[in-house]
Amino acid sequence: MEKTKVAIVGLGTVGSGVASLLLDHGDRTARHAGRTLWLEKAVVRDLSKARDCNLPEGVLTDQLNDVLSDPEIKVVAQLMGGLEPARGVMLQLLEAGKDVVTANKALLAEHGPELFDRARALGRSIAFDAAVAGGIPIITNMSQCLSANQIGSIQGILNGTSNFIVCQMDELGWSYDAAVAEAQRLGYAEADPAMDVDGSDAAQKLAILSHLAFGARIRWNDIPKTGIDTLELTDLNFAKELGYRIKLISHAELGAEGLELSVAPTLIRMGRPLAEVRANYNAINVVGDAVGDLFFHGQGAGQMPTASAVVADMIDTAVGRTPITFRTLELWSERESAVKIRPVDELPGRYYMRFQVVDRPGVMAKITSILGAQQLSISSIIQHEPDQREGGESVQLVIMTHEAPEGAAKAAVDQIMQLPVVSGKSVRMRVME
Amino acid sequence: MEKTKVAIVGLGTVGSGVASLLLDHGDRTARHAGRTLWLEKAVVRDLSKARDCNLPEGVLTDQLNDVLSDPEIKVVAQLMGGLEPARGVMLQLLEAGKDVVTANKALLAEHGPELFDRARALGRSIAFDAAVAGGIPIITNMSQCLSANQIGSIQGILNGTSNFIVCQMDELGWSYDAAVAEAQRLGYAEADPAMDVDGSDAAQKLAILSHLAFGARIRWNDIPKTGIDTLELTDLNFAKELGYRIKLISHAELGAEGLELSVAPTLIRMGRPLAEVRANYNAINVVGDAVGDLFFHGQGAGQMPTASAVVADMIDTAVGRTPITFRTLELWSERESAVKIRPVDELPGRYYMRFQVVDRPGVMAKITSILGAQQLSISSIIQHEPDQREGGESVQLVIMTHEAPEGAAKAAVDQIMQLPVVSGKSVRMRVME
Repeated sequence: MEKTKVAIVGLGTVGSGVASLLLDHGDRTARHAGRTLWLEKAVVRDLSKARDCNLPEGVLTDQLNDVLSDPEIKVVAQLMGGLEPARGVMLQLLEAGKDVVTANKALLAEHGPELFDRARALGRSIAFDAAVAGGIPIITNMSQCLSANQIGSIQGILNGTSNFIVCQMDELGWSYDAAVAEAQRLGYAEADPAMDVDGSDAAQKLAILSHLAFGARIRWNDIPKTGIDTLELTDLNFAKELGYRIKLISHAELGAEGLELSVAPTLIRMGRPLAEVRANYNAINVVGDAVGDLFFHGQGAGQMPTASAVVADMIDTAVGRTPITFRTLELWSERESAVKIRPVDELPGRYYMRFQVVDRPGVMAKITSILGAQQLSISSIIQHEPDQREGGESVQLVIMTHEAPEGAAKAAVDQIMQLPVVSGKSVRMRVME
Repeated sequence: MEKTKVAIVGLGTVGSGVASLLLDHGDRTARHAGRTLWLEKAVVRDLSKARDCNLPEGVLTDQLNDVLSDPEIKVVAQLMGGLEPARGVMLQLLEAGKDVVTANKALLAEHGPELFDRARALGRSIAFDAAVAGGIPIITNMSQCLSANQIGSIQGILNGTSNFIVCQMDELGWSYDAAVAEAQRLGYAEADPAMDVDGSDAAQKLAILSHLAFGARIRWNDIPKTGIDTLELTDLNFAKELGYRIKLISHAELGAEGLELSVAPTLIRMGRPLAEVRANYNAINVVGDAVGDLFFHGQGAGQMPTASAVVADMIDTAVGRTPITFRTLELWSERESAVKIRPVDELPGRYYMRFQVVDRPGVMAKITSILGAQQLSISSIIQHEPDQREGGESVQLVIMTHEAPEGAAKAAVDQIMQLPVVSGKSVRMRVME
């Protein structure tokens, strides 16, 4: 049977999973690729560190050059995290004639155009299905299976850590801090979970998907984003009362006036597939003009789901499918964006708003007249009786609006917050049907 | 830009959709395939019939030979239904050197091994993502994206017509006959819906998926199947009371003792993704040992969703991905099955049983002692007060069991039906968590 020599750079959690699949389950690759993927080298920084996979003699090395200088190694899974030296190593691998597979979304979101242009110029390919939504093969589905469609929108739960935290709060009534601690205990969140909970990780993935779906050339940190790190239990409970759940939704939608992009906690009606995504799962709903709604749900991270995606990419690369896709599909380049990104103030949406108001006659009239002046029409209101244990002075007022521009909703909230009868902080979130 | 000449054989609903995508949206193919798919010929039986797509002069023909004899036509979408002449035309196209794309699941389920062996011998390829679950790209996902996995199980709602009918009954309380009539009115069911509602269509699709996932070589009509055509509203209501919905589930599961296969109305706990699939949607849950649970949901039929899958396959074939997959993946052949199919009597499962019994002391003891003798342990029982309007003589008794072999469950029901206190027909269905 034909043999393709491969290498791994970076033997962390995902790297060890990839090594296990290649070493322990070679029969699968043989059956699905008609050849053996032969793990020739695994490059690590520290040779003395304990590994949870058993590598054959001679595979482990701390010399990247062992890979670069071996012309028989054709495919390399580059599984280092962070931007540098990952970027430099990626370029070295491409220059040395290797086709590269990566799971590093931050690297692609930051340096995608440079790396892809370089690979193209060198006649090499980069596969990256593991970079977005882990085990869900969304990249292959977008770049291959949906080719006959104009994608209209993408709505995704792309950060499993955030979803786990929100579910713990929503289902068990836990505080944000307790939920974060539990996510850390289970290994779902880093010691510093900032990139997950502030929406950065989701924005990087949305930037990659938007590029594939719309040809959008956007920097991930230009995507308006709000994380779950300021989400309160109060709002999860009010949402439930209204028949909704709150999820961290990454949203891209193509309209006549351009592409809308956002990452934010969003109310979704219960029963909709995205509303029912539990624990640390990821999910993506894609709407194409031919295919209609297509929904994917699976493990968005973790050792073996991510390794599953990396090895599938290594097989695709070894048999020649990825090089074809890379050559024929318009992928990332330094060229102009194919679509106009729409300013955030123009985006239309329905809104959930919460204010803390003094329980006094005339307050509702003041607030609703501000909403009216901004052309915001009210779809529902909740105000419970004041809690006497808290002095009975102030109450929570929740308003759901019909569709209106983001700018109008923001202006209304700003004006309402100026009222002397309104105190504390306000909350404003989008609502999806 | 490079140009690949293509043809369509059969210009029915799906064929017209494919023609529209190729003619009206050539820019997409260009962007996703780096080339134009040029529709050279569309072969129909009757030239005089009105079509809902506008073909350029000279494209429409009733001569298959116009395609066979043109060596520049490389890729042909063969969209005729039924077994013959579809099989013969497929063979002619392959002999003439064409790569073929098809949506004809019946043809593949019946003649797959012959057609695939012939294509292989001729160095040609057959793409068939549209044959299972329409717009859901499950074939590409199984044969490419999940290559690193040993698939453990597949559970699918693969017949949209059946799902629509069951939803109408479940959600609106309609009778089976009224729901079928509505499905026909909306174009979801044929005038003769037998193949849909008796489980044949789902069994054909399950045979194809099982081949891809497990290397199973099974004739579709050897898969034990029960359709929804005998489903009663009573059971949908009892299931609801127990916290379950009933869906027509196609199920394949690999165990140490072989592969279990079945198509049958099955109780699924509410809230599980498969339980919440509405209207005429399809859905598939695949479990892989690396990727974990992966769930797909989308339009399983209809003109444009199916055309979306056909055109994606035409692009994959034109750029060269399908020929690689066809060459490297172990696909259908006349060789031995890779797994043992497990006899249906051995399959373990939980069961829902319903009996009509006389409301008299000692009846429950008789029934439960039969269950006990078959080692069937009871997880819950429902018996409502007798309906006095119906004479108050007999009542419905519903029993849910813990896991037990199918054979034991069947034997218990047979023995219970022999009791003089039991009348009418009995119902037995599987329960999935």
